Amino acid sequence: MKHDPACFYCVPEKRPAELALEIADLEVSTLFLFKEQSHPGRCILAYKEHARELYELPPEDLAAFGRDLARASKAVAGAVKPAKLNYGAFGDKMGHLHFHIVPKLEGGRSWGGMFDMMPEPKKLAPEAELAALAAAIKAGL
Amino acid sequence: MKHDPACFYCVPEKRPAELALEIADLEVSTLFLFKEQSHPGRCILAYKEHARELYELPPEDLAAFGRDLARASKAVAGAVKPAKLNYGAFGDKMGHLHFHIVPKLEGGRSWGGMFDMMPEPKKLAPEAELAALAAAIKAGL
Repeated sequence: MKHDPACFYCVPEKRPAELALEIADLEVSTLFLFKEQSHPGRCILAYKEHARELYELPPEDLAAFGRDLARASKAVAGAVKPAKLNYGAFGDKMGHLHFHIVPKLEGGRSWGGMFDMMPEPKKLAPEAELAALAAAIKAGL
Repeated sequence: MKHDPACFYCVPEKRPAELALEIADLEVSTLFLFKEQSHPGRCILAYKEHARELYELPPEDLAAFGRDLARASKAVAGAVKPAKLNYGAFGDKMGHLHFHIVPKLEGGRSWGGMFDMMPEPKKLAPEAELAALAAAIKAGL
């Protein structure tokens, strides 16, 4: 396994507690609930190793990562019933392959456009609410 | 094949000529060069059918779409040598599954952030330049 000791996806202890709540390990990735919940159900799917680009993945991991992304998306959609999901992978400086999965509601925030990486003002839901949402998504995996 | 007669990815005649230049058909998708070239090498990969979400794809198409995305990304990276690629799928209103593949240069436009869907002012390269870039990407597929 390729890991970067400076990367907070590689080293859970480095992960800012206010960023993400772990939902489940999938085939080759981990699904997190993004704690900033301007888009209810927004998640992050992070590959298990420190790869920068999709084309670095061995073929079997690429296929599994696609399955993980589809499976996570379906679970998020089942939990929050969005009109559309958005997907985004950026990470220019951090370089650990991860996708944001962002549910959009018709006529709601950023509808018809992209989404903000970190909306302002932040909407940090209470921990109990986050835990319930994470459980609902997990149940749909 | 599921098609939407109002969708410009489904119906090439409806496609705005200033938007995208076709590069190649891949396994289950078509790769286009995005004519707005604030990010040199920016492309769009559109699934061959009118699906809204990744989880709607049959398993074999999901796997092939992942391969197409990785293959296209590698070809774009080979042609323009970015420090990082970004990937984004939005399409709230149009709802035809497609990914933007956006090369980022270290310290360049939007480095460390997301990217603009349509940067302003637009940077529309001359057709000959676009054709040369499309050919370079195609050669790397």
